[in-house]
Parts: sequence; structure tokens; C-alpha cells
Amino acid sequence: MTRLVNDPAAFADEMTEGFVAAHADRVVAVPGGVARATEAPNGQVAVVIGGGSGHYPAFAGLVGPGLADGAVLGNVFASPSTQQVVSVSKNVERGGGVLLSYGNYAGDCLNFDAAQERLRDNGIQVRTVRVTDDICSASVEEITKRRGIAGDLVVFKIAGAAASRGLSLDQVTDLAQRANDRTRSIGVAFSGCTLPGASEPLFTVPEGKMAIGLGIHGEPGLDEVDLPTADQLAQLLVERLLAELPEGAGKRAAVLLNGLGTVKHEELFVTYRKISKLLEAAGVTVVGPEVGELCTSFDMAGVSLTLTWLDSELEELWLDPADSPAFRRGSVAATGERRVVLAADAFEDIAPTTDDSRATAAVLVELLDVVEATIDANVDELGRIDAIAGDGDHGIGMQRGIKAAAQAGHAAYDAGAGAGSVLTAAADAWADRAGGTSGALWGLALRRVGQRLGDIDIPNAETLAEAVHAARNAITETGGAQLGDKTLVDVLIPLDEAYRAAVGEGSDGLTAWGAAAAAGEKAATGTADLIPRTGRARTHAERSLGTPDAGAVSLSLVARAVHTTLSSTRTGR
Amino acid sequence: MTRLVNDPAAFADEMTEGFVAAHADRVVAVPGGVARATEAPNGQVAVVIGGGSGHYPAFAGLVGPGLADGAVLGNVFASPSTQQVVSVSKNVERGGGVLLSYGNYAGDCLNFDAAQERLRDNGIQVRTVRVTDDICSASVEEITKRRGIAGDLVVFKIAGAAASRGLSLDQVTDLAQRANDRTRSIGVAFSGCTLPGASEPLFTVPEGKMAIGLGIHGEPGLDEVDLPTADQLAQLLVERLLAELPEGAGKRAAVLLNGLGTVKHEELFVTYRKISKLLEAAGVTVVGPEVGELCTSFDMAGVSLTLTWLDSELEELWLDPADSPAFRRGSVAATGERRVVLAADAFEDIAPTTDDSRATAAVLVELLDVVEATIDANVDELGRIDAIAGDGDHGIGMQRGIKAAAQAGHAAYDAGAGAGSVLTAAADAWADRAGGTSGALWGLALRRVGQRLGDIDIPNAETLAEAVHAARNAITETGGAQLGDKTLVDVLIPLDEAYRAAVGEGSDGLTAWGAAAAAGEKAATGTADLIPRTGRARTHAERSLGTPDAGAVSLSLVARAVHTTLSSTRTGR
Repeated sequence: MTRLVNDPAAFADEMTEGFVAAHADRVVAVPGGVARATEAPNGQVAVVIGGGSGHYPAFAGLVGPGLADGAVLGNVFASPSTQQVVSVSKNVERGGGVLLSYGNYAGDCLNFDAAQERLRDNGIQVRTVRVTDDICSASVEEITKRRGIAGDLVVFKIAGAAASRGLSLDQVTDLAQRANDRTRSIGVAFSGCTLPGASEPLFTVPEGKMAIGLGIHGEPGLDEVDLPTADQLAQLLVERLLAELPEGAGKRAAVLLNGLGTVKHEELFVTYRKISKLLEAAGVTVVGPEVGELCTSFDMAGVSLTLTWLDSELEELWLDPADSPAFRRGSVAATGERRVVLAADAFEDIAPTTDDSRATAAVLVELLDVVEATIDANVDELGRIDAIAGDGDHGIGMQRGIKAAAQAGHAAYDAGAGAGSVLTAAADAWADRAGGTSGALWGLALRRVGQRLGDIDIPNAETLAEAVHAARNAITETGGAQLGDKTLVDVLIPLDEAYRAAVGEGSDGLTAWGAAAAAGEKAATGTADLIPRTGRARTHAERSLGTPDAGAVSLSLVARAVHTTLSSTRTGR
Repeated sequence: MTRLVNDPAAFADEMTEGFVAAHADRVVAVPGGVARATEAPNGQVAVVIGGGSGHYPAFAGLVGPGLADGAVLGNVFASPSTQQVVSVSKNVERGGGVLLSYGNYAGDCLNFDAAQERLRDNGIQVRTVRVTDDICSASVEEITKRRGIAGDLVVFKIAGAAASRGLSLDQVTDLAQRANDRTRSIGVAFSGCTLPGASEPLFTVPEGKMAIGLGIHGEPGLDEVDLPTADQLAQLLVERLLAELPEGAGKRAAVLLNGLGTVKHEELFVTYRKISKLLEAAGVTVVGPEVGELCTSFDMAGVSLTLTWLDSELEELWLDPADSPAFRRGSVAATGERRVVLAADAFEDIAPTTDDSRATAAVLVELLDVVEATIDANVDELGRIDAIAGDGDHGIGMQRGIKAAAQAGHAAYDAGAGAGSVLTAAADAWADRAGGTSGALWGLALRRVGQRLGDIDIPNAETLAEAVHAARNAITETGGAQLGDKTLVDVLIPLDEAYRAAVGEGSDGLTAWGAAAAAGEKAATGTADLIPRTGRARTHAERSLGTPDAGAVSLSLVARAVHTTLSSTRTGR
């Protein structure tokens, strides 16, 4: 288990701080993650990688000349926020454009894609290569749905080498994409992992069994078999990878044998002994093998094998020098000035507003405080029910989000902002600090509400109905979840329908919201009858039957708390 | 636990094979261990490190330019044999002499010292620096009794850098000794480790507790306390090390934060964050910090902190470039030809012998087979009782030793050797293959017996009494154990006394040996009443009350098997 922890909510930040202290010669902290300590040459493509924390050396350990220019570091097992991706990218961008590369997980795709749009809006050229090496996570027909695991390293390394050679953004992108197309991994697990501060593992594997294809956050695998010997495991891994050769695979391959956490170097070497013999027997020449911890999941026990089928161009790039805290090859000449870190964007100018909107804004900051108190009171329970179907971080994520949102909302209000700007500031802070899919969606929804409220008028019941509906559309269009998928959408849609119906029938806003909150609560309870259909960390999905969805419960709690507060305000408290 | 295993007895060898396959660009296998793949310049001091396997990157991962020239790799948690140290040293020696450096453990001291003598007999200059950094393993008054843990790395690194700079053997030795004198470590553990093939941990720490100073093989620590936070642990480690400053300590220190096995990088970084702050607050400048796995014990959970108080000379050497599989710093220019590996010494010329001695030799090879069968039949039981007070490898070690001894004895006999040469060949093979303290002692004892028998005469009862007494003296003088320490000495002394007494009273050799075997059995049973006083891996020492000593039992079993066989031969079977 994970024992050395202070405040679990601060774990990822403290880890980054300690990492930077230990590797001050190679990396610097930038808002949202880390960057190489020295500037790359002007005009060079910047390679920005990232994802959730808890997979060291992915992603912080892979930053340096010949590898990534920056790594965006999310909370434990949670995607970084859009704002983090933008900040790290802006810090390392050198005029040659940015390649974003990361493992293919829903939350990461959402935030990196949103960041790509924002960066392009700022005139920066951006391309994306998602790593999809895990052959057990989807069939070869649905190859773009596959998850990214240790194959990350090869794709990042080849992208970093191509960028260091001064190639253009299109060339770097093509080479990284080609590396991904030719990379296949298979993982096995003997045990799950325990997140910092948790007393129970996030997921488990039965004692004496091995789960084939189990994902690094506990995503479902293909099969459970009896524990093999080291040689039998080598045989299984090599056979499965040789059975799915990518187009153009020759006879030369980069080989990674990755330990997921508590499998030790000695065991990896015993296993690699047989892997190297089997590959040799199959006529495969191993190029620049790596045996060690390359993409981990805390104390998860397991290994993965990765083969990247090289052509001569990829082979040269794989063998090019690189110098990062966790991966080094050859000699890299020290280049570049020590980096000057760009601060995170400060709060922008206050939009013009009115006394009417200021009065609404005052109510909004009060409501933010109420929501914060509501989440605080329910954080453990939200975590508990999320752990049944997901990765158990929902409560903590919501807490981080609303805390930041309330703080930013107060700051904006104190600076004189109107209702819309207060809510927009809160929305962006929520998305930035909460991270993960739910953080991005809550941020997006609040932002839409804020945009509809604006900074001038007092909103009436119809305006609020439009705002809620806009939030609903933003979430369903961006998140992709549908009614019945056991997500917050299962509460959001009935709530939106109930509110619009009540307003349509002539109810005042508060009464309508009471109906909406009641519909939301009923729908949240109803999610207990559902089984999740999509998303990451769904090992325990079927076991969650009988337990409501954490995101759905959050939304219904927030809706009820808002109604209770407004009712007591209206009745004069 | 350790899961990826084929044959546990072959684990260390298979690990080395896989390690060399994974790092073929940097290391080559040599008989007894590994060496850097390229030759160092002529006249350069060769730094040879080593110890038991199971501590990766110690010791194999620390071989390369700027670090060690070769690593001698013992079996799991067992000292390498004398022959292994000799072989690795001869392979890497370049005319500048050899510095042997290793952690201060009884078995390692025994075998490295014996190798030092043999190498000096071969005209090679040899010096030794034992690492004694663990402040919890003995008081500062008995500093030379302290064990070596992660501080190994700093001492090896400074020795390797000094050798690479072309300094003389005396200079390299002085600098390595100074590095050791200025190095202090403290370790804590949250759990024990499970050896390959074992189903139970070698030792344990109570759930929710932290053992301060527990050794990397389970040697006793100072105290057990409740599990601290990461920051509290940082405080404890820094305070204890700052409370015992070595002479001449200034304000600059090399700092290692080492994970023992299942403590993950993320936890190490969170802990290092506070350590770096505390050191800064104490006015200490951290030089070239290392945070990661530097000296491990399989899946043991724990960390250690090491400070080496640098002067300007040591600081330069600590920061000099190095390039090994597990430790790299700066850029090392590739130098030297690819190494040509020297084969292990072949069996030497057969000494002249007689038909009489050949007849004795025939009996001896039969007895070697009988002893092998006896150990095979008892290997599990010997392992079980050894695990109570020790590290549980006694049965496997004896089995490896006698198997090799029987094979070598047969080979010598088939080549025409007399009794003494057969036994000497068996003795050296035993010591070479069994490794560890008991392997070295059995090899030494058999060698003394062989020397006394010679290759000419038929031995009589008096000769045999002298041979047994010589074996006893060799073991008590070299091993250092005394009667009552719960070792094989508790059987050896009564056995020797009984045999000499019976022979002195005029008994024939067989009858006298019957009395000796009976005395040995009685004494072996009697060791159940003892508590071990010395030795490594004595966590469970007190718990062993009521269980006899495994080494004592081995010796009594062998003595009885020899008597039974000779009796049935004498009576014509």
C-alpha cells in the first residue's frame, strides 16, 4: 500500500515539489506541471506529454533534452485540467508549434483537446498523437479506442528525438504517429493498487491469479489465469504480441519490459531472460531494450511487455541521445539558457457590470460557499460510492474543484465583477484545480450558466431555464454520456426537464427549482439500478449495481443545497 | 511477494543472465559476476564490489566507467564465494591493483578476505574498504561493526571516480575509506520481504508499525513506532543523522533517499520534499541528490536516508561522470576495447598418488553421494528451521554446496586423483557454489581434512582425529562463533572431543566415529535451548528458542550418514 503521505489531497502537488527538488539540474516547475530546465532552441517543436499522476516515471520523469519539453501533471489517476495543458504548453513553446501526446483516456482527451483549441486560438500550431498500445483494451478493428500504457515511452522518445533533430511539426507528428501505429503492449497484473490515503485497494486480483490485460487504473481485462512461472509468462507475453503484428512490421523491435509497481528488478530480469531468447528464436532483433519501471501504478503488482516494430528512421530516433530524470541514452550536449517560468494567467480585467448584476453576484458567492460546505460534508460518502464503480477520487476531486471555485468567485466578486464573470471565474478555477473528467464538465457547465447570466441583468426564471439547458447541452455534447450510462447526465436531464416544465407552466424560479431538485434526487437514487457503460476504471462496474453513481449524487446534492439556501433567504431567515 | 520465479535455486543465475541480456551494451558476464563491457586503461585501479543478490541495483547495476569495474554476485541474500571474488577480480584487474569494497557482513568479510589472500598470492595488490554506514546496527563506539546499506553507492562511486582519474591504489583506498568514514545512513521498514519461491515473508513488521533500523535482511532494529506521515518520517530521519555528525563534517552533503522495494517513487518524492527543506533549514547544502531505488530487498517496504559529508575532494569525485546500468551522471567518453572474458580456472594437474589413497578416494566419493542424498532428503526441514532464526536458505545452500562438491569430487576421482585431492576439489566446489558463510566454512573444513589425508597413505584413526580437529580449528578461528552461539560449532566441538577421546582410548576409527556421531546428534538437539548471539538476519532469534540450529543439525545428519554408510560397508552389506 501507499504509506508515505501527508494530506492525500495534496499528494500530487507535494510529489511534484519533491521531484523538482531532487532533479533541479534537469527540470523546473511550471504552472500545471514541469518543464526541462534549459530552453530548447528557437523554432524547435515542443513535445508536451502528460496525464494523471501515480505512474512515475510517466510523466514527470520523461522530461529533458531528446525527450519531452514539458509534462502536464494531473492529480492522482486524474487527467490534468485544460488550463494546465495550456500553461505547460505556453511555457515550453518555442515558435515551432506543439505536439501534444498522451495515453488515450477519456478525461485526458477532453482536456488536451480543449487546450489544443485554446492554444490554436492563441496562434500556436498544435498537433495531437494519442498513444493506443494496449492490445487488450479493444479489438484491432477498434484500434483507436485502445488505451495507452508503457508504449507511451517509445512514442514520446521518438517524438522528442525528431523534435531535437529540428524536424517540422508535421514531420514530428507523422513520426510519433507512425511509432504509435507500430507499438503493441500487453500487460498482466497480480494485484491492484492502493491510492494515497486510502485504506482499501482500488481494485484487486484474486490471490494466486493473474489478470491478463487489466488496465493501469483497474480497467477490465480479458481473462484471469493461474499464476505462471517467469518463463511461462514470458511465453504468453511474446506469443500474444507476435500474434498481432502491425502493418509493415519487420524483424527489428524496440522492447520494453515494464514493472507496474511491486514486481522487482530481479523478477523483471529473470523474465526478460526468457523474453530475449524467445524473440531471438522468432528471428526478432532487439534494439535498445529497457527493463525496469517505465509506467507504474503505485503498488500494483504486474508487468507489461511492449514491442515497437522499427523501420530505419524510427530506429535511429529510438537510439538518439536523451537525458531525462528517468530515461537516459547516450550523451546529450547541454544546450540552452536556464528557463524563465511564465506565471499562470492572472485574473483578467473586470467586465462592466450593474448594481442589479452585482446583487445577483452576491447571491452566487453565497451559493458557492453553500455548495462547498455541502461537498465537504459528503466527501467521504462520495468517495466511498465512487470507489465501487470507479477510482474513488470523486469526492476529493469535487472538493478540490468547489474550493477553488469558491475562492475564485469571491476574488472576482471582491474585484467588482458581475454575476456572469463571478461564475465564469469560478468555473475556470473549478476545471483547473479539480482536474479529471468531472472537473472539466463542471467547469464547462458553470461557464455556460455564467455566459447566459451575463453581467448586466437580473436573471428571471426563463433566463435560468435557458442557462440550465445550455449547461446540459454542453455536458452531453462534450462528455458523450447518455441517459442510462450511470453518470451525472442521469440527474442533469431530468432536472433540466423538470425545471423547464415548471417554468413553462408559470412557476416562479424558486418553486421550479424545487421541482427540479426533487426530480434530480429521484433520478440520483435511480442510478443505483444501472450498470456503467463507459469510462475508465470500471473493474467493479457490475458490482456497483445497487449503489448510485457518485457524480449523479453530487449534482442532486448541489441542486438541493441551492434550493434550501434560496428558500431560507426568500423567507427572510 | 516475489512471484516471477522459475526454479528458486536458479533465481540468482537467471537474474544475472537476464540483466546482462538487457544491458549488453554496458556489462558482460564473467565467472562469478559481471564486469564492465569495455576494458579500463592499463594500470588503472580496478574497483570490485559485491555481495548477495536481491538488492538491485546493488551490486550488478553499479558496474561501468566511473563506478565499479566488476561486481561479484552471490546467491540471494548470501555472500559470493571466495572463488567468485577471485574470478571477477582477475577478469577486471589491469595492473593497477584491486580495491575490494562491500557491505560489512560476516559472510562477505570471510570470502572477500580469503580472496584477498589468494589474489595477493598471485602477485596482485589488493586493498579492502568495508562499508559501515548503518548507524542503527551498532553504536558509534563500535563503528567498525556497523552494517553497510545504501551508503555503499557513495563509497563505490567515489572509489570508481578516483580510479578513473588514474589515482594509485593507496590513494583510491584512502578516498573510499574517507567517504565511508563520512557516510551515515538510517533505515526504516514497514514490512519484510519474501524470497523467491518462499510462501512466507522472511521477517515481518506489525501492521501499522514502522521498525527503525531494521536491517535489509531482517537484522534487528532499534525500535517499533506507529506509522508516521511522510513529513514526520523526514523529520525523524534528518534529526537522527544530524545527531551523529562524523569528524570533519562541514555543511555540504551528498544525499540519498533510497526505496527498499515497494515504497514507490511518488512516496519518495513526497518525503524528499520535506527532507530537502529540513536540510536547508539546518544550513546543509545538498550536492547531487539521488532519490530512488539504490539498495533494495525485494518487496521489503521501507526507506533509508544517507548523508555523506563532503570535503572538496570528495565532492568532485561524487560529481564526476559515471555510466552504469542503474546510475548515470554527466557524460562518459566511451573508452577501451570490448572485454575478452577469462574462463574460470580449469581443474588443475593431478597430484601423484598411490593405489592405497585411490582406494580411500573411492570411499570418499561414495560418501559424498551419501551426504548429497542426506541433504536432499532434509532440505525442506533444514530450510524451515533456518527460517525461524535466520534467512531460511540453509537447506538450499547446503544442497547447492554438496551437489557441486560431489560432482567435483567425482571429476577429480575420474581424473585419477588421490583421497586428499578428491576432497580438496570437493571442498573448493562446495565453497564456490554454495556461497554464504556456511558454504565458506564447509569448504574450509573439508579442505583441511583433505590436506591432512594427503594423496599417499591410507588414513588411520589418529590421522582422522587430527583431520577432524584441524577442521574444527579452521571453523572456530575463521568463523568466530563460540560454543553456545547456536551454530554448527555447537555440534563440531563435542563431535571432535568425542572422536578424539574414543581414539585415545583405543577405539577403531569406525567405533570412535559412532561415538562422535552420537555426541553430535545430542548436541544438535541441545541447540534448541539456545538463542543465537551473532550473525545476520537474526530478527527472529528469540523466537527460535525451542528449535535447533539448522547448521548444527546439518552437521549431525552428515556425521550420522557417514557412520551408517561405513558400518554397512564394513559389515559387507
